[in-house]
Amino acid sequence: MSKEYNVAILGATGAVGTRMIQQLEQSTIPVKSLKLLASSRSAGKQLQFKGQPITVEEATPDSFAGIDLVLSSAGGSVSKKLLPEAVKRGAVCVDNTSAFRMEPDVPLVVPEVNEAALKNHHGIVANPNCSTIQMVVALEPIRKAFGLKQVIVSTYQAASGAGQSALNELKQEAQDYLDGKDIQDDAEILPTKGDKKHYPLAFNLLPQIDVFEDNGYTHEEWKMIHETKKIMLGDMNAKYIKVTATCVRVPVPIAHGETVYFTVDDPSVTVDQLREALKGAPGVVLQDNPAHQVYPQPLNAVGKRDTFVGRLRADEENPGSFNMWVVADNLLKGAAWNTVENAECLVKDNLI
Amino acid sequence: MSKEYNVAILGATGAVGTRMIQQLEQSTIPVKSLKLLASSRSAGKQLQFKGQPITVEEATPDSFAGIDLVLSSAGGSVSKKLLPEAVKRGAVCVDNTSAFRMEPDVPLVVPEVNEAALKNHHGIVANPNCSTIQMVVALEPIRKAFGLKQVIVSTYQAASGAGQSALNELKQEAQDYLDGKDIQDDAEILPTKGDKKHYPLAFNLLPQIDVFEDNGYTHEEWKMIHETKKIMLGDMNAKYIKVTATCVRVPVPIAHGETVYFTVDDPSVTVDQLREALKGAPGVVLQDNPAHQVYPQPLNAVGKRDTFVGRLRADEENPGSFNMWVVADNLLKGAAWNTVENAECLVKDNLI
Repeated sequence: MSKEYNVAILGATGAVGTRMIQQLEQSTIPVKSLKLLASSRSAGKQLQFKGQPITVEEATPDSFAGIDLVLSSAGGSVSKKLLPEAVKRGAVCVDNTSAFRMEPDVPLVVPEVNEAALKNHHGIVANPNCSTIQMVVALEPIRKAFGLKQVIVSTYQAASGAGQSALNELKQEAQDYLDGKDIQDDAEILPTKGDKKHYPLAFNLLPQIDVFEDNGYTHEEWKMIHETKKIMLGDMNAKYIKVTATCVRVPVPIAHGETVYFTVDDPSVTVDQLREALKGAPGVVLQDNPAHQVYPQPLNAVGKRDTFVGRLRADEENPGSFNMWVVADNLLKGAAWNTVENAECLVKDNLI
Repeated sequence: MSKEYNVAILGATGAVGTRMIQQLEQSTIPVKSLKLLASSRSAGKQLQFKGQPITVEEATPDSFAGIDLVLSSAGGSVSKKLLPEAVKRGAVCVDNTSAFRMEPDVPLVVPEVNEAALKNHHGIVANPNCSTIQMVVALEPIRKAFGLKQVIVSTYQAASGAGQSALNELKQEAQDYLDGKDIQDDAEILPTKGDKKHYPLAFNLLPQIDVFEDNGYTHEEWKMIHETKKIMLGDMNAKYIKVTATCVRVPVPIAHGETVYFTVDDPSVTVDQLREALKGAPGVVLQDNPAHQVYPQPLNAVGKRDTFVGRLRADEENPGSFNMWVVADNLLKGAAWNTVENAECLVKDNLI
């Protein structure tokens, strides 16, 4: 009989946590037991797993006694405090927060790109930022086939990337706007919970995700730059692939869009060769038929695990450089699914 | 006594046309008489100019008898048919459609960039595409000070760029979405009137504006590339400034956003030098203070004539390359105001 796992989901009641439960239900992981953990505020709430009710418990260090696998999405400070306690008690944790991503001994993994890095874990595996994940899934088949020198990305990020409360705020603002009300005072969360000022997102664009760094980049942009390097080259400061990013929040509930401009090593590469490399690549669905107006759209990506790629075009003035458009469900491939997928790989590779 | 002008607005009842009336009211142009022209469907409608009612007339070749200045935004085919008739009758036309933009003897003018080109007109001056205008207003002070080699732009374009009916469609879809209805069948106009399939824009992103060219670019992207070259270098195929673009429609009613990645000639240029060049540049308002979360937003740009620039940052791995974020009211600076501004310059420079 194959091994079965005692699993805990930390942050089980949030936008990502509830989707982790669904993704775990549909996964290949043999679950012996499931514990749902959250803050004291959510304790007592009942959620379903494979048709059975489970009562949410308050997360404490002792919650992890006997747990083999932790899937975590309860915020960076909670992860920092509790995951080392889980590891101490013998669990392996896949963490969706940014708490450990840049620790040298923590693998930062998108299985389609660097599954092999999982074997170097010391109890914690980090899930990258949502906007990074879908970009590297789309770029990796290209990098593998033709090399990759430079990436310039602009994001169109959905409200749910900032949590369920941001999603609710967007909908409230949208309704107020349609009712002819002033929506300036509706904003209490976006652009980012931790900052001083808040602006409405409905029918607007907010070129700030996360707080600002000293160099004028937001921390979200910093993540896209350095996580991409760590995932693709194993070093957050690797110089071979140059990356720059502008991250913008758009009034979309779920699924991020990205325009990705990239330069491959070989300037003779054609769009047809890129399409061949992307067709059938793991996790990628090519939706690229301009003649029939086929291209990725957020509304069509919601609820899917795939990363959708389209609008592939050569920069005709710069051989070897191309534009593309990438869309994925930020709560699934960008969070819950990538976490569960990492856990599936840990199980498959006997790393728990 | 200074000269006064008999003015006609062609397409006076549309989203841009009504704003042309407002912008003309607030302009320095001495208006002797104003004729409002539209299709037979809109004839008989009454609109106001400086408090006086004017009845909209059906546009015919003879409508232009005695007219000195035509401001036109009635669609490309109407411009192609009627503006040569107006020129034949002695009028000078500023056309907001794409009908004549690439004609070698038609100046394509954004006054902040190439006002001098107006003097070469032969009766028709073309207004560039909305997304091009705000980009070149932001780039010109930089080009003048430091030279410009390359531009990679991603747009976040408002629904109103596709006209009043697209704006109405967005609002209807948004309400239906909030009411829990399926919005797939609401779409009858976007992504673009002239194409076969239609998709909802509300809470979605559409990476198609205008129809597709054979090389996979949309015609909107083609316009951004070739109009930028014609405006900045006087030649739609000029090679010195390389330009590539991805144009995306976003669920915003009015005001386009753009992430603009650009490379200047001098790799030693700093962000502070760029800010100096942009401060006080014509038509530009610098909104760039990350410490206080100050950056351009569409909701704040609506109704303004300016182009708002922020999020200026160096690409730290590519000296001389930078990111910025540009927002402007696509119906004003992107259309009605740039048209009236061109007309003001024609008057000022004695070119009518």
